[in-house]
Amino acid sequence: MEKVVVIGGGTGSYTVLRGLKKYDIELTAVVSMMDSGGSTGRLRDEFGFLPPGDARRCLIALSPDTGMLRNLFEYRFNKGTGLNGHNLGNLLLTALRDITGAEEAAIQEAAKILNVKGKILPVTTKNCHLGAVLENEQVVVSETNIDIPRHDAGLRIKELFLAPRPPKAYEGAVKSILEADKIVIGPGDLYTSIIPNLLISGIPEAIKESKAKKIYVCNIMTKHGETTGFKASDFVKELEKYLGKGVLDYVVCNNKKPAPDLMKEYKKEKAEFVEPDLKSNGYKIVKADLLDKIDLARHNPDKLAKTIMNI
Amino acid sequence: MEKVVVIGGGTGSYTVLRGLKKYDIELTAVVSMMDSGGSTGRLRDEFGFLPPGDARRCLIALSPDTGMLRNLFEYRFNKGTGLNGHNLGNLLLTALRDITGAEEAAIQEAAKILNVKGKILPVTTKNCHLGAVLENEQVVVSETNIDIPRHDAGLRIKELFLAPRPPKAYEGAVKSILEADKIVIGPGDLYTSIIPNLLISGIPEAIKESKAKKIYVCNIMTKHGETTGFKASDFVKELEKYLGKGVLDYVVCNNKKPAPDLMKEYKKEKAEFVEPDLKSNGYKIVKADLLDKIDLARHNPDKLAKTIMNI
Repeated sequence: MEKVVVIGGGTGSYTVLRGLKKYDIELTAVVSMMDSGGSTGRLRDEFGFLPPGDARRCLIALSPDTGMLRNLFEYRFNKGTGLNGHNLGNLLLTALRDITGAEEAAIQEAAKILNVKGKILPVTTKNCHLGAVLENEQVVVSETNIDIPRHDAGLRIKELFLAPRPPKAYEGAVKSILEADKIVIGPGDLYTSIIPNLLISGIPEAIKESKAKKIYVCNIMTKHGETTGFKASDFVKELEKYLGKGVLDYVVCNNKKPAPDLMKEYKKEKAEFVEPDLKSNGYKIVKADLLDKIDLARHNPDKLAKTIMNI
Repeated sequence: MEKVVVIGGGTGSYTVLRGLKKYDIELTAVVSMMDSGGSTGRLRDEFGFLPPGDARRCLIALSPDTGMLRNLFEYRFNKGTGLNGHNLGNLLLTALRDITGAEEAAIQEAAKILNVKGKILPVTTKNCHLGAVLENEQVVVSETNIDIPRHDAGLRIKELFLAPRPPKAYEGAVKSILEADKIVIGPGDLYTSIIPNLLISGIPEAIKESKAKKIYVCNIMTKHGETTGFKASDFVKELEKYLGKGVLDYVVCNNKKPAPDLMKEYKKEKAEFVEPDLKSNGYKIVKADLLDKIDLARHNPDKLAKTIMNI
């Protein structure tokens, strides 16, 4: 059976996994462990465990589409002192982490409970924080501060780093990358969901060593404070800074612009359409209409999965 | 198949259900909905739903003895702002209540998830608070204030009531009582777990009307602030004030005193051995050694269940 590994985090991984789970493949999600915002961030600070949010999204993506346990994992409290804003899936993962004593075991138990198809592996089991050096040499620490900038969001990110130092990759994640037939990187926030995985010691090395076809899925829209003004070629250039040049075999890129009304909405958040300006540069380019609907600037899980499976 | 209904709440119901679930019977737990303390009380205040605690204990009692979901339902957070002290089972029941829109549906969904044997029914689906009039006419409102007295705990409870008024019973609970072959009342805290069920409009009426054998299981120890100085006959007398005289067919009473060392420990909490002073008074008396271990002043689930099944 074909072995497909998805590397990422956030809603990008959720989307691609939802599409890929319909195929008869051995599916593995390698997920970022640097989230520090919202419910996840509060739990991370208060319990000292690794952040549960990215794993939770993958668990939901790979669980059957219906079922009360899935609903519970998605449930968010909207009141209650200290409970308000907490995601119940995060609380369940926190309890499982406490009961089992390890993040990878907690995710595995949750996967069993949710009857998940495929595997979800943390990219690392070591606690570390994401940081960024901006073009003015300002240093921003903690994932949520990069994701939701409190600094001048017009400043470009010059370099990402992990504090206190890049930890070792989780060996299960390395093994799955080495044994993969296809490695899918993205889609997702470039600096806060994708590249953080490539900062982990052993991950870019494993991707290079793997005989898999290496596929990068570029985003549909830019994100203010991270990729302002980026064209598809800029996404790839930044990615290659951390992954190495000549590693990617394919770049998948949406070429259908969302409806003008929607573009206006995104303009308010200073997000723009990512121009598919790619020219072959050691990798093959797959351009396609990957839009979910013309009035939604996000990938359609089925179109994206089909494109990946056709490679 | 024999239909057995257990009426109560708290750890007493937990104990008797754990024993009875091993028999091939149709088992139903009718549980009190007046808890207002701890994690349950906080959720009750902040969400406005009915208290989940008593149903949670029954769910755990009737679920298979092992399994991660059971562990999660039993898990209690010991840190986290606002999370500390919360029971995860209570949080799951709160989320299920919010998702399904009704307490009875929430309990049913939890029972499905936990693969519970038997049924758990709320005694009522209306929100109400327990109150007590003490012998000095002082009025204490809220279950937790009776359970953990802040008033002079030497004062006897003269009368229990529900505020704002006794609500109607949940019709499913009434039906199960009417159709039962055996009704087991207790064991459990007399004024905070047992009698509250008998204050619900329709419950004592249904018990009287039912052709079931009606069995009261007396406590092993007294509880300071509730049943100080009570002998077995006092427990029955108080119960009959709310249930009616001549309704009980059997009273089950432990006659084995716990070890002296343990009695000393209980003395510190002003709890004493309940003397089995019963004399037949319209009901049959079943006295037996029901102690879990000589160094534990609580019912052994198996001994208790066997005694009940032999009736």
